[in-house]
Amino acid sequence: MDIAALLTSAGINIAVCVVLFSFYSVLRKQPSNVNVYFGRRIASQHSRRIDLCLERFVPSPSWILKAWETSEDEILAIGGLDAVVFVRMLVFSIRIFSIAAVICITLVLPVNYFGTDRTHTIIPFESLEVFTIENVKEGSTWLWVHCLALYIITFSACTLLYFEYKRITNLRLLHIVGSPPNPSHFTILVRSVPWSSEESYCETVKNFFSHYHASVYLSHQMIYKSGTVQKLKDDAEHVCKVLKNASLEKTCKPSFRHCCSGAGGTNSFKKISNEMDIVDGRMGNSDMHLETTTKECASAFVFFKSRYAALMAAKVLQTPNPMLWVTDVAPEPHDIYWSNICIPYRQLWIRKIATLVATIAFMLVFLIPVTFVQGLTQLEKLQKMFPFLRGILKEKFVNQVVTGYLPSVILVLFLCAVPPVMMIFSSMEGSISRSERKKSACCKVLYFTIWNVFFVNVFTGSVISQLSVFSSVTDLPAQLAKAVPAQATFFTTYVLSSGWASLAFEVMQVFPLLCNIFQRFILRLKEDALDSSLTFPYHTEVPRVILFGFLGFTCSILAPLMLPFLLIYFFLAYLVYRNQIINVYITKYDGGGQYWPIAHNTTVFSLLFSQLIALGVFGLKRSSVASGFTIPLLIGTLLFHQYCRQRFLPIFKSNSAQTAIDMDLRDEHCGRMEEIHEHLRLAYNQPRLIDDASTPPQSVKHHEDMDSGQSSSEDMEKEGK
Amino acid sequence: MDIAALLTSAGINIAVCVVLFSFYSVLRKQPSNVNVYFGRRIASQHSRRIDLCLERFVPSPSWILKAWETSEDEILAIGGLDAVVFVRMLVFSIRIFSIAAVICITLVLPVNYFGTDRTHTIIPFESLEVFTIENVKEGSTWLWVHCLALYIITFSACTLLYFEYKRITNLRLLHIVGSPPNPSHFTILVRSVPWSSEESYCETVKNFFSHYHASVYLSHQMIYKSGTVQKLKDDAEHVCKVLKNASLEKTCKPSFRHCCSGAGGTNSFKKISNEMDIVDGRMGNSDMHLETTTKECASAFVFFKSRYAALMAAKVLQTPNPMLWVTDVAPEPHDIYWSNICIPYRQLWIRKIATLVATIAFMLVFLIPVTFVQGLTQLEKLQKMFPFLRGILKEKFVNQVVTGYLPSVILVLFLCAVPPVMMIFSSMEGSISRSERKKSACCKVLYFTIWNVFFVNVFTGSVISQLSVFSSVTDLPAQLAKAVPAQATFFTTYVLSSGWASLAFEVMQVFPLLCNIFQRFILRLKEDALDSSLTFPYHTEVPRVILFGFLGFTCSILAPLMLPFLLIYFFLAYLVYRNQIINVYITKYDGGGQYWPIAHNTTVFSLLFSQLIALGVFGLKRSSVASGFTIPLLIGTLLFHQYCRQRFLPIFKSNSAQTAIDMDLRDEHCGRMEEIHEHLRLAYNQPRLIDDASTPPQSVKHHEDMDSGQSSSEDMEKEGK
Repeated sequence: MDIAALLTSAGINIAVCVVLFSFYSVLRKQPSNVNVYFGRRIASQHSRRIDLCLERFVPSPSWILKAWETSEDEILAIGGLDAVVFVRMLVFSIRIFSIAAVICITLVLPVNYFGTDRTHTIIPFESLEVFTIENVKEGSTWLWVHCLALYIITFSACTLLYFEYKRITNLRLLHIVGSPPNPSHFTILVRSVPWSSEESYCETVKNFFSHYHASVYLSHQMIYKSGTVQKLKDDAEHVCKVLKNASLEKTCKPSFRHCCSGAGGTNSFKKISNEMDIVDGRMGNSDMHLETTTKECASAFVFFKSRYAALMAAKVLQTPNPMLWVTDVAPEPHDIYWSNICIPYRQLWIRKIATLVATIAFMLVFLIPVTFVQGLTQLEKLQKMFPFLRGILKEKFVNQVVTGYLPSVILVLFLCAVPPVMMIFSSMEGSISRSERKKSACCKVLYFTIWNVFFVNVFTGSVISQLSVFSSVTDLPAQLAKAVPAQATFFTTYVLSSGWASLAFEVMQVFPLLCNIFQRFILRLKEDALDSSLTFPYHTEVPRVILFGFLGFTCSILAPLMLPFLLIYFFLAYLVYRNQIINVYITKYDGGGQYWPIAHNTTVFSLLFSQLIALGVFGLKRSSVASGFTIPLLIGTLLFHQYCRQRFLPIFKSNSAQTAIDMDLRDEHCGRMEEIHEHLRLAYNQPRLIDDASTPPQSVKHHEDMDSGQSSSEDMEKEGK
Repeated sequence: MDIAALLTSAGINIAVCVVLFSFYSVLRKQPSNVNVYFGRRIASQHSRRIDLCLERFVPSPSWILKAWETSEDEILAIGGLDAVVFVRMLVFSIRIFSIAAVICITLVLPVNYFGTDRTHTIIPFESLEVFTIENVKEGSTWLWVHCLALYIITFSACTLLYFEYKRITNLRLLHIVGSPPNPSHFTILVRSVPWSSEESYCETVKNFFSHYHASVYLSHQMIYKSGTVQKLKDDAEHVCKVLKNASLEKTCKPSFRHCCSGAGGTNSFKKISNEMDIVDGRMGNSDMHLETTTKECASAFVFFKSRYAALMAAKVLQTPNPMLWVTDVAPEPHDIYWSNICIPYRQLWIRKIATLVATIAFMLVFLIPVTFVQGLTQLEKLQKMFPFLRGILKEKFVNQVVTGYLPSVILVLFLCAVPPVMMIFSSMEGSISRSERKKSACCKVLYFTIWNVFFVNVFTGSVISQLSVFSSVTDLPAQLAKAVPAQATFFTTYVLSSGWASLAFEVMQVFPLLCNIFQRFILRLKEDALDSSLTFPYHTEVPRVILFGFLGFTCSILAPLMLPFLLIYFFLAYLVYRNQIINVYITKYDGGGQYWPIAHNTTVFSLLFSQLIALGVFGLKRSSVASGFTIPLLIGTLLFHQYCRQRFLPIFKSNSAQTAIDMDLRDEHCGRMEEIHEHLRLAYNQPRLIDDASTPPQSVKHHEDMDSGQSSSEDMEKEGK
């Protein structure tokens, strides 16, 4: 591939992006698309009116300006801490790759270009390999330039990472301290309550906590089973109950009254049999067991009088059997993933192992399409396999499109299927909160992407066509040093096609747009029926941004030509994602910035990995000085990582006693504690039970400012985008 | 090596053992050796008289009887939980290898012996290889016997391990609940107290805990610097102070009075300048800075009113900066390793990394003597290297001794140097308690032993003479399958020589015996000057026992001939170590059975490793059925390990809230709480400060039943045996 082909590719992509962005700026002004492009505003303002200009059909860059001008505080208010963390990732990437681009293009590129004594053709027809480190001849004394560049990049990256981590940690703390009283701070989730034949789970929980935590225990709330089978069974029971209306009234009442009567934890759970919704439709057909109460799980929310007490109870081993009375900090009411909360604790470790195995299996099976895609960059192979294509492929333009563009597109299409699969895996894993599930899916997608986009491409696309390379460990750096520069061209086109195009598609919201058109003009649904509450797909976007960072670090000193394209990507991403956060995605729950440690760790891994490759390259080029200087850099980076783990990570794992106590004291001084305790009892409402009772208690309506988990199950599928 | 050579080796060892054991039974009856062989009794009974029979010079097996009869409760009372755990390791080994021996000798050995169609010579001249799996021909249908044996061994081992873990966990809980009030339960160690220019560390600690833990905070006690340099400086200051006696009296007093006056944490620290011990001898020569107080560290012990409060404070992140106010459960007063307690917390992570690197480097450097030792088993090599030896080596007896005995002896001698080195590493690592230091050294010695005795012998001794094998990962099972059976003979002799002899030397206490003779008959010291307080060297004995278990599991189905020798070893070890626990070693502190998780994990690793080797062997022998059946076994063992980690490990990491609260309630009902709080203030006495004040305060003497750490530094060197 030569410069001309690269520019063709870049041209196509720039054209596509410009067209799509203009198209977007027109589409967003159409009133019919309001619920696609302004979902968040509709959700927050409860109105569908937006300011429409007169020039509805003229493209305008106003959205770019708006996205640029929004301050970080506004983003925090709108999108929560996770959104800020995501924006900070982009800011960090822009900063570090600006530095890298300046260093590498001024220092490294000339050294690469004039690396061997050969006659250069005019630049447009120069092969891209001339600009990579492959062009530097063996034993060159100029390799110290690469080593210096590596030092500068590593030091800048570590400094920036450190300050970002510090800043985000402070933001997280401020966010925790500054936010309104959060019921999850007072609540713990107890799982694996031991079963006893003498008393119900509810009584067991009450007895345990009022004995061992008497001074701080407030009340508790049981969790009820709500699996699919259970749902069917419940429905059948409902019908039965309605049929025998009068007689059941008596048996139901006491079962919900006698337990927790003093504590008052389940006030909001109204008697199921009361005023039943017969128009439910699903009549059920299963067995007709007539149990009088909804089945209790061995899990409960326990409320404490202070944040500190709840933190204590959550962090300490409760009983000498670690499989019983497992306590955890409760997720926020909106954040709870109700379907998983009843999973027996004993299953969890098996589920985790099973998910791990399934994920690895999925990653390996995925090799097949990727291997095929890689075949496309080596046209000779393709022509051998499909001789009838030979005629077409000889045409220059087709050739350029096929080598420069098609592989990436196919890869991207395949990759689209990955996030939903990983989301399913994460649900099966047993995450109890939706943010945790998304974070877990994010990690899985990240490993998957780095493995399948980077490693598999490197190893299958390069000279070593078999996977035999995985069996040898000690010469891995040398193997990588051979393989990575050879694939640098592919990664440059990958940034161009996948990166830029993904942003354009993101801003266009192609799938919701099509759905909207379908619903609006074909199904002719009313405005109110058009739902548009999407949450930000961190599990797809975080890995994507991190992957491009990874590619950037790995290729920066090997093939510096990639950096300008990457920088453009990050700059566009900054604008696009800010726009999406402001306008499109709603924030239902806050993960508390848990994505930053993932980004930090992967960035450090990228640095280490790029150093390892550099070590291999310097070794291959027989520059012992440069190799020698790379080793202290590796050690330094590892030490930096270890330090950051010690210094910042614990704050992301757990709240600190000081913070909790300070907040408790503040609330006590304001005299708000009583009010908060009142609210607590209504904060966690299991959706199934609320759905059943057609008239929700008045008190819930009053205290909606305290968060209530009513609407937390309907958008489950939407997240799995 | 043939059966005759093995029997020669066994004969030598049996003779050596019988002689040494008889010799021991005589020596122990000599009054002059009382402090070598009955150190514990002397320490506990404070008397030097023991019942002496008339037949002082006749060997007798009475000690064996005594060791056999002692019950586990007695061992617990005498040696603490660690001793019981150690005995349980031996019991477990005896049980599992009895099963393995029965299975392997009845089932596997005949299959191995008749594995190939060859004419067998008479058994004494049969090569040992005939009894190993190497003798089974490729594609044999009898390999299912090995697979079955592997299944039986794995299932028995897992069952036994599970019940042992359960039993030891219960013992640990009972021990915690049943023991007298332990000051460490009420105390936390706070490190990295932030420095402030306005107030002293003492005031900072007081302010912090009386603000954030007001209701449960009792008092605290600062820790003072006592490094070598500091000691010299202190000594110099002492002399100065004594010279200006009268004038200093005034400046010293307030500095120890004003802080913690209400809390009363430092009552026991008397003014240093008071009644100075001038006969100290060390006059010091360093600079004459006249600081008025001993320097405070950024660390302190903080006492709480209840166990639960202390547990809470120890387990929770205190402030948003995890590098400040680092809290930890305090070790028992006798267990504290005072030299390390002042190490700044910020250094710890660097120290840990440095120690890790140093340990790995040490392990690799150690390869050199081991490689040499292995040369001895291949006589041809030796004869080539040293041609002048050819004459001697041709003699049959010399030949047998050299191949069967000498390599092991040399290896053992080299290995003797390892534990002290590892102990030094563990001290440098920054362990705050002596039990933790010993545990850490135990792990290091364990890794070292398994690496150097097993892996290096396997890889250097076998056909693959280079270390090239480490570079290939996927064919590791196959490589191991080739190498391990070839080395089985060496391991059998290793059990014979190193195992049996080590027990004889252990019971003889050769080094203390020589010291005793030297002191008593050459230096002519008095009885009272002969100190004999050795603690049990868990860091050498636990790895040794585990190593033999590891060899046993790995070789059981490959070379079943080893098992009877191993069984004898474990049986002897059971008697010898019980005898040593009862008579010799004193127990100064209790580690709380922390060695069991190490033993458990290593045993599971051994099982996995033996399955991996079996997999390789079955692969080499082309028995796909047997290989196929081994894989579920591997997965099952991994799941078992994961389950045990979940079920039992947390209890070894931390006390549970239930236990702590129950103990608190019990003490409150008895009205003992006040008394315990009184004792707490005197429990932790930093030895340096006590040494300085020649007249210890009366109150310390009164409460010696509560533990006081006075004598905790003098036996530091002895542990590094």
